Amino acid sequence: MIVTSWVRRVVLLCLFLLPLAGNAVAQPADPLPSWNEGAAKQAILTFVASVTREGSADFVPLPQRIATFDNDGTLWVEQPMYVQLAFAIDRVKTLAPMHPEWTGKQPFKAAIDGDMKALAEAGEHGLLELVMASHAGMTTAQFEQIVKDWLATARHPKFNRPYTELVYQPMLELLAYLRANGFKTFIVSGGGVEFVRVWSEQVYGVPPEQVVGSTIKTRFQMRGDIPVLFRLPEITFIDDKGGKPVGINAFIGRRPIAAFGNSDGDLEMLQWTTKTAGRRFGLIVHHTDAEREFAYDRHAAFGRLDMALEAAAIDGWTVVDMKRDWKRIFKAP
Amino acid sequence: MIVTSWVRRVVLLCLFLLPLAGNAVAQPADPLPSWNEGAAKQAILTFVASVTREGSADFVPLPQRIATFDNDGTLWVEQPMYVQLAFAIDRVKTLAPMHPEWTGKQPFKAAIDGDMKALAEAGEHGLLELVMASHAGMTTAQFEQIVKDWLATARHPKFNRPYTELVYQPMLELLAYLRANGFKTFIVSGGGVEFVRVWSEQVYGVPPEQVVGSTIKTRFQMRGDIPVLFRLPEITFIDDKGGKPVGINAFIGRRPIAAFGNSDGDLEMLQWTTKTAGRRFGLIVHHTDAEREFAYDRHAAFGRLDMALEAAAIDGWTVVDMKRDWKRIFKAP
Repeated sequence: MIVTSWVRRVVLLCLFLLPLAGNAVAQPADPLPSWNEGAAKQAILTFVASVTREGSADFVPLPQRIATFDNDGTLWVEQPMYVQLAFAIDRVKTLAPMHPEWTGKQPFKAAIDGDMKALAEAGEHGLLELVMASHAGMTTAQFEQIVKDWLATARHPKFNRPYTELVYQPMLELLAYLRANGFKTFIVSGGGVEFVRVWSEQVYGVPPEQVVGSTIKTRFQMRGDIPVLFRLPEITFIDDKGGKPVGINAFIGRRPIAAFGNSDGDLEMLQWTTKTAGRRFGLIVHHTDAEREFAYDRHAAFGRLDMALEAAAIDGWTVVDMKRDWKRIFKAP
Repeated sequence: MIVTSWVRRVVLLCLFLLPLAGNAVAQPADPLPSWNEGAAKQAILTFVASVTREGSADFVPLPQRIATFDNDGTLWVEQPMYVQLAFAIDRVKTLAPMHPEWTGKQPFKAAIDGDMKALAEAGEHGLLELVMASHAGMTTAQFEQIVKDWLATARHPKFNRPYTELVYQPMLELLAYLRANGFKTFIVSGGGVEFVRVWSEQVYGVPPEQVVGSTIKTRFQMRGDIPVLFRLPEITFIDDKGGKPVGINAFIGRRPIAAFGNSDGDLEMLQWTTKTAGRRFGLIVHHTDAEREFAYDRHAAFGRLDMALEAAAIDGWTVVDMKRDWKRIFKAP
């Protein structure tokens, strides 16, 4: 048929020209405008060029271009506390009237009183109790709505902006740059997967099916003729430290060729990604800008960076000095 | 710059023409040539047309076009036993010399002797014992190689062909047809996710990150400077029955708009997919062809189809009669 064969010619033309054209479109003169010239920016550009150049010894075929990003402290702010912990505390305050017993019980009393010292003393176990009380006992659809409503009104104590605006502009550019070069970008977060998925597509361009995170137990129920998934107060997987390679293997099933983190919780993900044959890339965001954001590493209560910083020097991972390497920190208002 | 602006014109031309061209290429006159004309084929074509037509009340945007497929009995043969069980039995036979204690212990003795009756009597618990003994105790990389080596030599007892050739040609066409229409196709299998991922990309065109399945515990270890994931004999998730919606929610994080299964193990996945607002599609493959494959439903030891067949009539799911609806069963040799 004439039209079809004409169409086929156009397709062949397009298929022939699109790679060239695609590059011209996807990669402006500077794909990372918010990054200052320097070793970090150069390392990223060199890595991407080497694994995408056909015929290069380091060339990596499209399906294997998997890049994994930590979330808290790597893509958005994690101080003065993890955003999800702020959500849990607000949620406990909201639920307090229905739980008079909480007023005499830690860590709930500390959360209700905003007593951060007592909260810190409650330790990991205490924080898990808060998460269970605030993240379970509803359907997955109800939880999604609760998170949406909270994000719409919550503000960061220092910047007085919605948390979803406190994402790092240089990292947004990096995500887009990698995708323009055929990478599939995944989030691998210690946070709850259903907390991150609510906004990851809109904010990062990362769809829910490319978010790996900690999980709690859910149970399928038919309520009359309506199927629901009910959230139970039982953690089934913690996607942190040694759990990150485990989560990457369970959810993605492919080993990344590039990984991006900012704390000791990302050490094993960076090891799993880089300590193997072939060209690999590891990057750590070092929070060095007390003025524009926060400055912290070895002694931080959240996002502690110690072993991973030492490993970076030994294993040749790129370390981003936020103060020096980033022209701007947050997404434009 | 002249070249760039010229390139840009070509891109605009392509972007304008590709949808048209793409359809012309991706959808030949008959996208499902191995399907006989009839209600099942028509229901598929009508559903896809309705959710992909811009402006239609049933239109579904690209990111939400998620389709989930069961594997055993839906995409490949599951009789006279699940392929993965055949693998486990062969693996136990291979390992038997190192486990003299097995010769006096069920279900291992039954596996070694090929005593299917005793194996059946061992029940689910016994089968899990076999899986644990055959699927754990090595790294994820070692397990992948073991599965590859087995698939290269194992043959189906009735058809004397490699299992990876005993995939259903009509379903391969359906997978390709859905992808050509912007669907993201996922496998949601009761089988082990790391067993299916070894060959799903090559055989189905479904990449590892789009395979959901049952999982066992793995532990991250640094062996000297080499990171490994070691497989432990502990099941962490069974992706069957009510576990399928749970797995879909945990791994994909989006509710499918179309689901395809063949047994009662797929009932909850079909309920979760179809019992909600908007145009949805559910399909069940009914094995009715004793000559070309196998005929079984209510009384099958593997792939039992009973409740889901009754639900199909009530909930309006499409039921495929393999004997009547499929021109050919298996992929061309």
